[in-house]
Amino acid sequence: MSELQNDRFLRALLKQPVDRTPVWMMRQAGRYLPEYRASRSEAGSFMDLCRNTELATEVTLQPLDRFPEIDAAILFSDILTIPDAMGLGLRFEAGEGPKFDRPLRTQADVDKLFVPDMGSDLKYVMDAVSSIRKALNGRVPLIGFSGSPWTLATYMIEGGSSKNFSIIKRMMFDEPKMLHQILEVLADSVAAYLNAQIEAGAQAVQLFDTWGGVLTTRDYKEFSLNYMQRVISQLKRENDGRKVPVIMFTKGGQGWLEDMADVGADCLGLDWTIDIDKARERVGDKVALQGNMDPNVLYASPDRIREEVGSILEKFGTGSGHVFNLGHGIHPEINPEHAGAFFKAVADLSPKYHG
Amino acid sequence: MSELQNDRFLRALLKQPVDRTPVWMMRQAGRYLPEYRASRSEAGSFMDLCRNTELATEVTLQPLDRFPEIDAAILFSDILTIPDAMGLGLRFEAGEGPKFDRPLRTQADVDKLFVPDMGSDLKYVMDAVSSIRKALNGRVPLIGFSGSPWTLATYMIEGGSSKNFSIIKRMMFDEPKMLHQILEVLADSVAAYLNAQIEAGAQAVQLFDTWGGVLTTRDYKEFSLNYMQRVISQLKRENDGRKVPVIMFTKGGQGWLEDMADVGADCLGLDWTIDIDKARERVGDKVALQGNMDPNVLYASPDRIREEVGSILEKFGTGSGHVFNLGHGIHPEINPEHAGAFFKAVADLSPKYHG
Repeated sequence: MSELQNDRFLRALLKQPVDRTPVWMMRQAGRYLPEYRASRSEAGSFMDLCRNTELATEVTLQPLDRFPEIDAAILFSDILTIPDAMGLGLRFEAGEGPKFDRPLRTQADVDKLFVPDMGSDLKYVMDAVSSIRKALNGRVPLIGFSGSPWTLATYMIEGGSSKNFSIIKRMMFDEPKMLHQILEVLADSVAAYLNAQIEAGAQAVQLFDTWGGVLTTRDYKEFSLNYMQRVISQLKRENDGRKVPVIMFTKGGQGWLEDMADVGADCLGLDWTIDIDKARERVGDKVALQGNMDPNVLYASPDRIREEVGSILEKFGTGSGHVFNLGHGIHPEINPEHAGAFFKAVADLSPKYHG
Repeated sequence: MSELQNDRFLRALLKQPVDRTPVWMMRQAGRYLPEYRASRSEAGSFMDLCRNTELATEVTLQPLDRFPEIDAAILFSDILTIPDAMGLGLRFEAGEGPKFDRPLRTQADVDKLFVPDMGSDLKYVMDAVSSIRKALNGRVPLIGFSGSPWTLATYMIEGGSSKNFSIIKRMMFDEPKMLHQILEVLADSVAAYLNAQIEAGAQAVQLFDTWGGVLTTRDYKEFSLNYMQRVISQLKRENDGRKVPVIMFTKGGQGWLEDMADVGADCLGLDWTIDIDKARERVGDKVALQGNMDPNVLYASPDRIREEVGSILEKFGTGSGHVFNLGHGIHPEINPEHAGAFFKAVADLSPKYHG
């Protein structure tokens, strides 16, 4: 592997000194970019794009080519690859989000669950990781990722996206053992999946706990955080002789930062509903922080975007341990020039907070 | 007016001693009740039901007749009556939620806004309040309500329900003066609306800030909390010689309780993502608390519901200042017997926490 030319992202995750605050953006390879839309229509469906090594590599690198300030690439894939490999029958319907043909509802459904084979059913993901890593040629580190066990379980049990999470919560309240059984298989699957990504070349990994924030404190700890800890404890955290940092992001999890800081992650992702200075006070030296600009700021003018970036940098203050990002993925309607203003603002305005 | 026979709800809001924790449920008059569905089909559309004094009275009292433990009635109406009275053209489309024919987009749209006349455009709401108050005949107090200025503005600017709030947030970031102009008219309208409800007989009022939780701390204070304070400061808070308490509920607002406790509300509504003991510690003696069971617990068995009610009562602990409720409205698919188990559990299990 080529030597890494820009490691400020990896260094910031470990709170090591950097020259400026590193930046990347959730969904930076995505529909807001015309070059992405072109690759996507060449590929066919969204999952066709994920399964096409060459095109998945191409779209992963597109934002890096357009925005030179970006400090990390993220594997182009979906969080639902694991349940798909478990045989639940994933479909994406236009305007409706993901659907599973065979959601988990009965004990018999649950008893059939298994840890998918990373070398066969999920080989296409590892092929993408290797190919992207090669194409990056050491420009920036590559982030691997997975949905959290709880988040994957919501889709698998509800059968798709949900508003109220009524089916999984009924199971949680009335049949907690069944839900724990599902989450155990998922935690072991997610750990195997991330380990395979690390072996294929991922230099950091992120757990997306998109739906942990719909739980009470007690239920978050028991049904989401607990299984993220089980994942993290199984990870082989080394690649090319460097530590592979772990980022854990629970959207809506601002009330539980102290607990989240204690399960072995190196960095916590923040959404925009908490001030990053308050979050930093609460987690102390335990973990780095990633975030946390409201993605809707990107609808505003480039000047306003720059002002907002400056305000968040100022809130975090001096020293390492901050990876700049949005508090959620970029929306598809954003003007790419506004994304550019965001990246440039971080690069321009952050050096004064370092060394 | 007949003398109030059950005032434990009003007393708890003011942290005065009570014999047991009072209870009501957001959307307690609603689709989960077969008797509601019958009245609704008699009325026609949802807004027809709101405008029909007799039927609006009937549905308001239905849960009280079915569940004797309920300690408060809430006006049957919608939060969008104010924008409707401002001439934005409210429609409810099946399965799509509310839509406005004429959303606010330009300065010219905004300049046309006015505080609606409570005696004409919104007379049907005051007629419902008077009628319900008469029908209650002192059984329990009647709660009036309104959407918060920010929450009303989201619907008026987006043109209906929203996922990302991109239109209002673009305005907030790029044209904050225009948004402030809208929120000022809305705050004065909401204050006039709640005052008219109080004059018509409402004995407590609740501000529903359903969408304040999508903001950053700074934007919440400037664009939501600020205008709720402007509303509260204008309220005539007396009815029949008793103080009219104000409940303020920002869903997703658990990070800002200290700020919320300082704007003149008597009670803060909590969703289920915060532990009520932690919330009580944070607000101290400043305000009472309302909430905060996850509404999805009602999908579970009656035994599990009872257990969960007990756990929240135990968390709050001894003393007055707690109004039991869900952390959000009851879902339409809930079995009414499960709602009954909830009310009964509060009545059965709470006396031991009171003198």
